[in-house]
Amino acid sequence: MNGIVDEPEDFITLTEDKLLADEVSALVISPSCGAVSLFIGTTRNNFDGKKVKHLEYEAYAPMAKVEIKKICTNIRLKWPSVRHIAIHHRLGTVPISEASVIVAISSPHRAESLEAVQYGINALKATVPIWKKEVYEEEYSWKENKECFWAKTIK
Amino acid sequence: MNGIVDEPEDFITLTEDKLLADEVSALVISPSCGAVSLFIGTTRNNFDGKKVKHLEYEAYAPMAKVEIKKICTNIRLKWPSVRHIAIHHRLGTVPISEASVIVAISSPHRAESLEAVQYGINALKATVPIWKKEVYEEEYSWKENKECFWAKTIK
Repeated sequence: MNGIVDEPEDFITLTEDKLLADEVSALVISPSCGAVSLFIGTTRNNFDGKKVKHLEYEAYAPMAKVEIKKICTNIRLKWPSVRHIAIHHRLGTVPISEASVIVAISSPHRAESLEAVQYGINALKATVPIWKKEVYEEEYSWKENKECFWAKTIK
Repeated sequence: MNGIVDEPEDFITLTEDKLLADEVSALVISPSCGAVSLFIGTTRNNFDGKKVKHLEYEAYAPMAKVEIKKICTNIRLKWPSVRHIAIHHRLGTVPISEASVIVAISSPHRAESLEAVQYGINALKATVPIWKKEVYEEEYSWKENKECFWAKTIK
């Protein structure tokens, strides 16, 4: 394709830097693909009626990356035409309206990237051990992800 | 929410300028939303086995905008918690790997924005009269969108 080798790649990053949609989508855009789908998770200013000041994320990075890699493998099994996958998660403080996670996936046609992004963010929430601290205006509390499979086992 | 009025808004743009994911997502990000989903349609370097050089898009802008606005209205009926919707379509020449269309939607929780983006791009392909010229390396041909409802009636 245009003489460019464009082998499928997974881009997995955990970073304290700000996440940018154009940077992450640029990783997955491919000359042989007509579709890029993205999901961006942003810090919401409220939770359970409380005003959130910001979120703080912590992870044991090697373990989190292994779990994210498993999601990429599963996506490729389910949607073999998917070309590139980028899953970037921010760690540390994430202010209101800024992105904590971006999932970006390219495919030749749109259905595959749309379905794969939906699967990818749901799987990430359910399986990747990244902890979220909600800092409220007057207090704070550490939260396991309520959707995560280990949420019910670690008490 | 943080003293900011954040009424739902639809951002509909047809432009000859390059489309940028961060610019379009910035329009829909909301302090009271935790999710932004995007679909980016990019120019693919091949079609039916032919090498594509670039695409050219043309539209009768007022009619195209009316049809896009109808899609926004339908999204709000189907997913009332959707906050902002941005649908930007590029016109004129769109080189390989550049975006011809970006659909970006925010919602407090992720399921709604993910489903609404999928609906939005499918509806856009099916109902919005924007014509695509595929310029191949050795020739070119004007194509109606094969998914479009009027594709079978205009001959």
